[in-house]
Parts: sequence; C-alpha cells; structure tokens
Amino acid sequence: MRMTALFPGSFDPVTLGHTDIIDRAAALFDRLVVAVMVNNSKRGAFTADERVRLIEKCVGKHKNVEERSYDGLLIDLFKTSGCSVIVRGLRNCAEFEFETQYAHAFKKTDARMETLFMPSAPERAFISSGMAKEVAAFGGDLHLLLPDVIINEVNEKFFGRAVDGNNS
Amino acid sequence: MRMTALFPGSFDPVTLGHTDIIDRAAALFDRLVVAVMVNNSKRGAFTADERVRLIEKCVGKHKNVEERSYDGLLIDLFKTSGCSVIVRGLRNCAEFEFETQYAHAFKKTDARMETLFMPSAPERAFISSGMAKEVAAFGGDLHLLLPDVIINEVNEKFFGRAVDGNNS
Amino acid sequence: MRMTALFPGSFDPVTLGHTDIIDRAAALFDRLVVAVMVNNSKRGAFTADERVRLIEKCVGKHKNVEERSYDGLLIDLFKTSGCSVIVRGLRNCAEFEFETQYAHAFKKTDARMETLFMPSAPERAFISSGMAKEVAAFGGDLHLLLPDVIINEVNEKFFGRAVDGNNS
Amino acid sequence: MRMTALFPGSFDPVTLGHTDIIDRAAALFDRLVVAVMVNNSKRGAFTADERVRLIEKCVGKHKNVEERSYDGLLIDLFKTSGCSVIVRGLRNCAEFEFETQYAHAFKKTDARMETLFMPSAPERAFISSGMAKEVAAFGGDLHLLLPDVIINEVNEKFFGRAVDGNNS
Amino acid sequence: MRMTALFPGSFDPVTLGHTDIIDRAAALFDRLVVAVMVNNSKRGAFTADERVRLIEKCVGKHKNVEERSYDGLLIDLFKTSGCSVIVRGLRNCAEFEFETQYAHAFKKTDARMETLFMPSAPERAFISSGMAKEVAAFGGDLHLLLPDVIINEVNEKFFGRAVDGNNS
Amino acid sequence: MRMTALFPGSFDPVTLGHTDIIDRAAALFDRLVVAVMVNNSKRGAFTADERVRLIEKCVGKHKNVEERSYDGLLIDLFKTSGCSVIVRGLRNCAEFEFETQYAHAFKKTDARMETLFMPSAPERAFISSGMAKEVAAFGGDLHLLLPDVIINEVNEKFFGRAVDGNNS
Repeated sequence: MRMTALFPGSFDPVTLGHTDIIDRAAALFDRLVVAVMVNNSKRGAFTADERVRLIEKCVGKHKNVEERSYDGLLIDLFKTSGCSVIVRGLRNCAEFEFETQYAHAFKKTDARMETLFMPSAPERAFISSGMAKEVAAFGGDLHLLLPDVIINEVNEKFFGRAVDGNNS
Repeated sequence: MRMTALFPGSFDPVTLGHTDIIDRAAALFDRLVVAVMVNNSKRGAFTADERVRLIEKCVGKHKNVEERSYDGLLIDLFKTSGCSVIVRGLRNCAEFEFETQYAHAFKKTDARMETLFMPSAPERAFISSGMAKEVAAFGGDLHLLLPDVIINEVNEKFFGRAVDGNNS
Repeated sequence: MRMTALFPGSFDPVTLGHTDIIDRAAALFDRLVVAVMVNNSKRGAFTADERVRLIEKCVGKHKNVEERSYDGLLIDLFKTSGCSVIVRGLRNCAEFEFETQYAHAFKKTDARMETLFMPSAPERAFISSGMAKEVAAFGGDLHLLLPDVIINEVNEKFFGRAVDGNNS
Repeated sequence: MRMTALFPGSFDPVTLGHTDIIDRAAALFDRLVVAVMVNNSKRGAFTADERVRLIEKCVGKHKNVEERSYDGLLIDLFKTSGCSVIVRGLRNCAEFEFETQYAHAFKKTDARMETLFMPSAPERAFISSGMAKEVAAFGGDLHLLLPDVIINEVNEKFFGRAVDGNNS
Repeated sequence: MRMTALFPGSFDPVTLGHTDIIDRAAALFDRLVVAVMVNNSKRGAFTADERVRLIEKCVGKHKNVEERSYDGLLIDLFKTSGCSVIVRGLRNCAEFEFETQYAHAFKKTDARMETLFMPSAPERAFISSGMAKEVAAFGGDLHLLLPDVIINEVNEKFFGRAVDGNNS
Repeated sequence: MRMTALFPGSFDPVTLGHTDIIDRAAALFDRLVVAVMVNNSKRGAFTADERVRLIEKCVGKHKNVEERSYDGLLIDLFKTSGCSVIVRGLRNCAEFEFETQYAHAFKKTDARMETLFMPSAPERAFISSGMAKEVAAFGGDLHLLLPDVIINEVNEKFFGRAVDGNNS
C-alpha cells in the first residue's frame, strides 16, 4: 500500500510545533500534503500564499512533502488529491475534543476518510501560532516558537504593521 | 409534580444535535420551552425570528414544546415562564466545564434554579452550528448535520450571501 | 407525567456530596429511589445493609425517597421499579467521561433509559467516600465530609478495625 | 514504504471497540500485529492464550492481521517484530492523557517509535472490557459490547465461575 | 528569601474570583504585583487605567500589593519589577491546559521564571469577567460576581453604553 | 516572611519527575519538607524507610530540603512541622482534578493551608513511579525515568523479587 497523508491547518504562521509533525509524518508516509485551508470568514496575519511560502522555506528539504493552499471543504481536497489519511497533531485534551469532532464528521461523510493523531512532542506542545503572533507584536524573541528560517520574514510583517500604528 | 423544562441556546441554526435533545426532553417533561437567547454583542448568521421559525419547522410535531426568543437574562425568563429546570446537552468535557459555570451561577442566584444535563447522543456529539455554517459556506452536504426540513432554507441564506461576495 | 428517578451508587458510605444530590433530586421528582448497587468483586468498608441504613438515617425525612440495595444489573432494577430516569451527580471531567460511557450503554440497551446529570454543589465537589474513609482511618474530623447523624457509626467501624490491627 | 502497525493491549476480552480499531487499521496498514501484553501483576478473567484465541475468532478474516501474546516490554516487541508504528484507539480525554504518557516514553527511548491514535467510533466509545465483564457477571446481554462469535465462550467462562460461587 | 509574586491578567473588570486569589497570595508572599496586561488587539469594556483603579478600590487594604498596567511582554515586566514567581488561579481543566502552555513558554525563555497555580475557591470558580459583563449588559444583579465597592462604577459604564444604544 | 513548603507523596520510588519539582521548589522556598505519606491500606514496592533513603540519595545536595515519612493525616503534619504551603506537581488534567479535590479539603479544614501547584516540566510529564516499576519488572532501561544514583538499588529490589518468583 502507498500512503498519502494530508496535514491540513491554518499555519498562520507555521511554527516549530507544526514542523515537528511534518518531519515525523514525512518519515512515516510515502507522501505528505501540507494544506493551508482558506477560511474566508477569518482573516489571518498572513495571506494564504505567504503561509504556503513560509512552510516551503521550513520543510522544503523533504522530497515527499508538498505544500499548497485550498479554498474549499477538506473532504473535497482529500478526494481529489489522492489521500489515504488525515494527520493532525494533538497538544492537549481541548484539542483532542475539538479534532475528534471533525474526525467523526469526516468519517461519517466518507467511511474511508480516517484521521490519525500524532501526540505533539512534549517540549513543543506549548507552542501555538497565536502565541508567536503575540510575542512578535511586542518585538519578543521568536526562536523558541518558530523555525529560524522564517523569523526575519515574520518580524518584518509585524514591524511594518507596528510602524503603521495598526496592530489589531 | 408538573415539570416544565427550559432549553436555552443560540440555535444559529438548530442542528440534529439540538433536535435530539428536544425530542428526548419532550418525552421526559410535561412541557418544554426552547428559547433562542438574543445576545446583542454577537451577530449570528440568522436573526432571532428566523432561528425560532427553523426550530418550529423541526419540532412542531411535539404538542408540549414551545419555541420563542428572549432578549434578557436567562434567570428572568426562567421565573416568568414557570419553569422547573434548565436542560442542556453535553457533548464533551469542555462543554461540561463551561455549562457547569453557568449552572452554578443560576443556582447561587436562585436556589430553585436547577440545571439537568443530558449527554448528547454519541453519533451526534460531533455536530455543531458552527460546523454546519462552515459546510454551508462551501456548498457542502448538510444532511449529516441539520434536519432535512430546514436544509433548503439554510442553503438559501448562505447562497444569497455568497452571491453578494459577503460570506463573513 | 409522574417521574421516578433512580439514583444508583456504591455509597460506601453516603457523603455530604450524595445527600446534596438526594435533597435536590427529591425536590424535583415525584419519587426517588436511592439504590446501593452490590458489586461482588469489590468489597467495601460497609455491607450493603449497613450502607442502606446509613442513607436512611440521613435522608429519611424525605417522604418521596426510598432506599434499597440491589444485587444485579442496573437496567433490570430500572425496569422493575418503575423508573423514568437515572440521576447522577457530576463533580469533574473525569466523572463526566466515566458516567457518560454508562449513560450511553443504558440508552443503547433501552431507548427509554435516559440519564440526567446534576452538577455537584461546588463547595461539596471535593468530597468522596474514599476521602472520608482515609480521614476516618487516621481518626480525623469527618464533619466536612459526612452528615452529622452517621459520623459516630462510621468512626465505630474504623475504630473497631484499627483495634484489630486490620485497617486495610 | 511498507508499514507494519502494532496494536498492543490487554484484550480481556476483545470487544467491539477493539475490533473496530483492528478493522480500520487493517485497511490502512500493510500488516497489523495485535499483541496481548502479559502483565504478571494483574490477573485477568482470561489467560493470555484464551485472549489471543478470542481475537483470532473475531478478526481471522483479515489476511494481514497477526495475533500473539507477549511477556515483556512493548519496546522489545516493537523492535523484534519489524513494526513501523504503534496504533491505539482513543475514547476520551482520560485515555488521551494516559496513552500520551506512554507514547512519549516510547519516543524518548527510541526516536523511530511513533504512536498513531485513532479516535474510537463514537457509537462504540462507551464500550470497555471491564463493562463487558460486569454485564457478563450478572448474566446480562453482551451483544452491544462483544463480537457475536465470542459471546458463548465469554458466557461459559463467567457461568462456570458463578456456579463455583467465586465471581471475584 | 524575600518573594515577590506577579499576578498578571486582563481584569476587565476585576471579579470576586480575582480578589480571592489576590487576598490569598497577599497573605503568602512578601510583595504582590497585580498587573493589567494591555493587549492592543483586544479592546475591553474598560480602559487599562480604569481596570487598575477598580483593582485598587478592591484590594487597596493590602499594604504589600501594588497595582499597575503594562504594555509589553510579561517576561519583560517580570524581570524589571524584581519578581520571583508568577501566580495564576485555576478554575478548571481548560484553564489548566491554557495556562500551562504559557508557564512552559516562560520557563523555556528564562529558567528562573516559575509559575505557581492556586486552585480557585470552589464557590467562586464559576465567576468570570465575561459573565459579569453579560449580566451587567442586561441590568442583572452583580453581587455574586463583583466586589461591592465597584458595582456602581461597572453599572454606570454599561448603563451609559446602553443609553447610547451601543452595547456591543 | 519565611516560607516552608511541604511536598507530600508516595515516592514509590522517587522519579525524575519528583526530583524536578524538588529542585525547583528548593530554589523558591526557604525550606522544603519532602514527606513520604504512609498509607497502611496500600503496600508499595518499597518500605517507607527505603523511600526516604532513596529521596535523600537524590536530593541530599540541597541544604534546605528535609526528607521524612509520616504515618497520619497530612493536615497534622502540616501544622506540627511549621509549614506555610503545600506544593504538588501537575502533569495533566486528571491530576489537576484529583489534586484540586484535596487542596479544597485542606483549605476547608484550615483556611491557612494553601496548596500551590507547579506544572511538571513537559519533557518529564510522562514519568510516573508506576511506569518505572513496570519497566524495572521486565529489566528495562530506567535512565529516562529515575535519577542515576538510585537505579542500582531499584534494580536489585526487582531482581530479588523476580528470583523469588514473586513479582506481584
């Protein structure tokens, strides 16, 4: 069996928590699709294209990983991109309960649509994109939260906004 | 003793999770008041009147169920509508903790104001109004999430908005 | 509708947490059956008969409450004693998850077998029979944990065992 | 990549919850090893050999599933049987927290030892081996809890013990 | 050792839950700094200055408590104000998981930055600033939620806004 | 204020999780009492004296740490040994809920008896005494779980028992 795993998320921006899951999933599965899911009702700090490019910078080294954005339902992306399973990281109980709701919805819609959960590395389970944006907004040190190769670009984004006096 | 249960919520829109609780509570209690609580600070996808009408379509068959909206504190509705208990469904721990805070607040305010929790049917515990709106916004299939009799109306609401280019 | 609620448990021994649920449920339902469930594989500190008698001492004042023990499956007791619902208190998430498993099993076995959860009074949610037995074994003060009318009898039980050098 | 998944557990006895995970994992992975882990300090209702045979009865239809018992550390079985991942089902938060501790221990011991969690089917998440044994001990109906093909054997085990007056 | 504890939060507005933690922490530590953390991306009902003044009204009696606001990262405030530990109240699991993420982030950034959690008083664990604002918006009774000395000022704030027809 | 913290537990045996809490608490408080609580109803793998000696081996370097055992109620030890606070580590939600019950009981019994929780270091939160005993029973590697200085003694204990054919 050849297995393609789909790792969907907001990635606004990609963190060391995300890259840990990507590195581990890339080692397990034949092919891994990392998909920035576009949700028109929630504007992020980064555009979908920017988020995809930041992911590429971090995990481009993996030959079997593809990055993309998708503006639609996860179930449609799953079917059209030849995926076998969905992969999601789990940091804590709150996340387990939230993700399980979606896993059940996918499975009810299409019985072949399985979700596999990977427990977050304990020393990275405290990291979130939201925390990274908070720290960046105040000019704090991002090295514990984000891969080194994207810290400059993230800082520029927040520095530019701060200069404009508009950091909502 | 004649028992009237009050089932309050946002119902934006009513889902198969809600109608499961309504059907089961209608079978247990003498009278059931389903109340759309109006919260001026949060705008929903549907108006309070629309939400009440959607609930009526789904559970109108029950002779002992009344639907209404209320623009005020739950405790005032409880007293003025002759209720004996509040009923809430529980899908998971996060919901248990959130709902328990309110149950304690009600009980402290008025010792007769008891809250009874009904565990969600396991095969419906993944359903939420938010998930239904996400699926509707992308034109997905709503039959797993919403009662059949309201799917057309929900789709029209989201289709209209999509045409206007305004699906926030 | 006339409602009989069934409140099953180990009650080894009954605590102030249990009597809080009994007092509140007795005020809501027409009739309340408090049932000491006998589990042959787990020996308690008190026999089933002792547990029933301790409950009677505490809640005998309620005209609509009956106490008994039962050596069998809860579902059989439910059917033969004319019950409408099962009532259980919830102290925390762990209990919510455990109790929900049983509620689902009952409902699957017989669709009319509904479980209603009552949130424990916050100032009594820390109480458990196990904690009471720990405190009693060391001769501590039981007034925060047990109804006054049973403290002497509980202390005698543990004092007798301690004298025998057998406080397992 | 050829993936062998290892599904370890007590299986005392195998339930409909376990067979759901086995059926789904057998469809995802090239090879699945179901291992009854022997823990000398906890005696079960069934011997290790009996548990393996009961599993075989239920999932023998899968060509890519092997059943066995193991009297040692999981990490040694993982290495010697050519496994790529460990698979575990998750029913609730309590289980998530317990299983995550083990997943982290495995990963720290050997970085290649990944654990993948599969969310239990919601309509089977209430099932446990313990509940099945409770029901069996009182002669209750096991069809909601256990695969049909093993119910007779499980009932014989408990009937025999009841006759002996020894159902601890 | 002389210990200064830092109690950071939004305090929008300070509640009986917060003052319970402040009273207890003031009794334990030599000095307590209560800090209103300014988050430019989230506008509250009260300005930072108003929040500080409301806290002062409630806990001014403690000689060893200082109130202030801070517009920056907590870690910078911790270092510059000579603190030994961070103190946070815990109401439930959801809060435990959220707060633990921050505690780990602080500790990774600076190994001396310890967080100590105090369990909320059970009879106040249902209280939140959000609940107080909901009740205030509908003109409800705030005595269970807020210290008496600030209720008038909170009501004026919400009454003024209601008159303007703007209670978002 | 001079603060003495009391860190009670089973310590059967002390793990790297415990020593992390001890090291951190010893750096925060003036004096730290580590107390092996004797529970006559639960026999451990090590005697109370052995547990105390193992703790001493691990944390003897701290001048302000005292080790002892106690055969009685925690509240009595707290009062007689001049303690200001109880300290407990928290690994997850289950532990938070369990520990909070005890913290509330202590506080109700004596209002000055505060419990402070320290979040476990994330990379050690998977460790438990039970896991260490499981690994030891099968002759596994204990270096991830126990301080180096006690591994020989723990292995001897389990090796001796295994030779006797008695590893319950």
